Amino acid sequence: MELTILGTASAMPVRDRHFSAAVLRYEGAVLLFDCGEGTQFQMLRAGVKSPRIDAVFITHFHGDHFYGLVGLLSTMSLLRYEGRLRIVGPRGLAAAVYATPGLGRNGLPFEIEFVELDEGFGRAVVYETDAFAVTARPLEHSIFTAGYRFEEKPRPGTLDVEKARALGVTDYAHYRALKAGHAVTLPGGRVVAPEEVVGPPKPGRSFAYVTDTRPCEGGRLLAREADLLYHEATFTEDRLERALETKHATAREAAAVAKAARAKRLLIGHFSARYADLEPLLIEAREVFENTETAEELRRYVFESVAEEKT
Amino acid sequence: MELTILGTASAMPVRDRHFSAAVLRYEGAVLLFDCGEGTQFQMLRAGVKSPRIDAVFITHFHGDHFYGLVGLLSTMSLLRYEGRLRIVGPRGLAAAVYATPGLGRNGLPFEIEFVELDEGFGRAVVYETDAFAVTARPLEHSIFTAGYRFEEKPRPGTLDVEKARALGVTDYAHYRALKAGHAVTLPGGRVVAPEEVVGPPKPGRSFAYVTDTRPCEGGRLLAREADLLYHEATFTEDRLERALETKHATAREAAAVAKAARAKRLLIGHFSARYADLEPLLIEAREVFENTETAEELRRYVFESVAEEKT
Repeated sequence: MELTILGTASAMPVRDRHFSAAVLRYEGAVLLFDCGEGTQFQMLRAGVKSPRIDAVFITHFHGDHFYGLVGLLSTMSLLRYEGRLRIVGPRGLAAAVYATPGLGRNGLPFEIEFVELDEGFGRAVVYETDAFAVTARPLEHSIFTAGYRFEEKPRPGTLDVEKARALGVTDYAHYRALKAGHAVTLPGGRVVAPEEVVGPPKPGRSFAYVTDTRPCEGGRLLAREADLLYHEATFTEDRLERALETKHATAREAAAVAKAARAKRLLIGHFSARYADLEPLLIEAREVFENTETAEELRRYVFESVAEEKT
Repeated sequence: MELTILGTASAMPVRDRHFSAAVLRYEGAVLLFDCGEGTQFQMLRAGVKSPRIDAVFITHFHGDHFYGLVGLLSTMSLLRYEGRLRIVGPRGLAAAVYATPGLGRNGLPFEIEFVELDEGFGRAVVYETDAFAVTARPLEHSIFTAGYRFEEKPRPGTLDVEKARALGVTDYAHYRALKAGHAVTLPGGRVVAPEEVVGPPKPGRSFAYVTDTRPCEGGRLLAREADLLYHEATFTEDRLERALETKHATAREAAAVAKAARAKRLLIGHFSARYADLEPLLIEAREVFENTETAEELRRYVFESVAEEKT
């Protein structure tokens, strides 16, 4: 499970920074959060082949988060993507995509499942598989905006192999069954319950994507105990007034959200073009939340995997 | 007067090549031909400040020529562009722009004059100033496509200062009047006609932008005696079948257009992703038209200025 931040710029294009997008790779799945103009090029640089995307989550309709989507769809079409693509975002997303020349309802050779969020929504599970779910919550920006949280489902606890052997379990199929939560009956008639040999379920890993927004309840709930929180930090605290005006967060505010939510690690991004040097943003965030980094484009942030015992 | 090619890729994104766009700078004017995704970033790299654009000419609605337009407009809006922007392209352009979230009719703080071309049109002057005109003609592609020709208006002929002096003209205002085509009456009563001292008007410089297309009459007419012709050359001749299928040109065909049109210089571009090395395209084009180059992104192609005498 790893995250690559593809863009750390805010709305104004600057050299060497790109518009908002982040790709989360989880086992076979590829999830894209936001898709600013140029995202497909950054995906190439990050080694993500665009046809492998499973879902795209758009936060809001500002161009720097959204205008790369039509180009990505066009390229997926050229590359003959086969499958169902889930695209999640504010109400109006499907209409906007289909109004784009070349992407009419019959223009794409693959199926898109749109999930559109309405202003005023509270919380929505917008994508779910056996292994994880993505939840959306409203944020507070100048236009309707949603943040997202990826959460792995709890995984089976650790099987105590020594203990299982001592009880007479030696069959590989029995180990699997116990781990999956089923009791097994041994040849001699003894029934072994999973509770006897398997530890408590391990909580899933989580990632929260919170941009663009003022610090807000939605952001804090998405970030709750997240292994990794990406939070916008457009300005430093001395520009708080500008942050209030434009409905963005300062680095200190992003850190306060991470702290309040007891997130484990914070990446800040969506930097105003005025900051050629990001050090001031980092310094003020770390005063509030030590485990902060400024997001680095194309770097891979790996989520610790809980070591699985070999059975 | 100079041209910068911003992108030489065809529809499939590849590293280190960008989507179609070319910027022509002529005295104060900045004209953009095509606007594929990422064009605004390439403009930054080329040192063009986006708010200074006067007109955009879109050839067709394939994403690699068009999907950067909304982002550019969005940035011009953020940068508080003041003025009238002319945008030329196929019918449906205005609707597509205004259907984009954030770019509604009342969403942009500046005025756009759309000029939309209809399928079946023959020739249209789509932008004109005192100094130059841009003409559109239909090309032959898989969807409706227009090519463009920029042409400087004929400039006054050279004033023969020696001859004028010999006739008694010594006044700077008289030189100017003669150059502008007016007769002047000298203090002694002698009338000097412009024909006596001014050479024939000098033809304006010209640039033709011909992409995406099969070699065609429209392309040849646009390219006629052009100082610089940019013509697509997606494939080499051994892939002619693919060029026919996809309605593109081979490098040899592009060169044949340049030759038939008696263009002075040819730049080929819009290269298929299959060509990491462009040498084969260049070699086959030069067999037909010697003064060919493969377009190089961000390089400035300067149009020779006819030296003006100082009067």
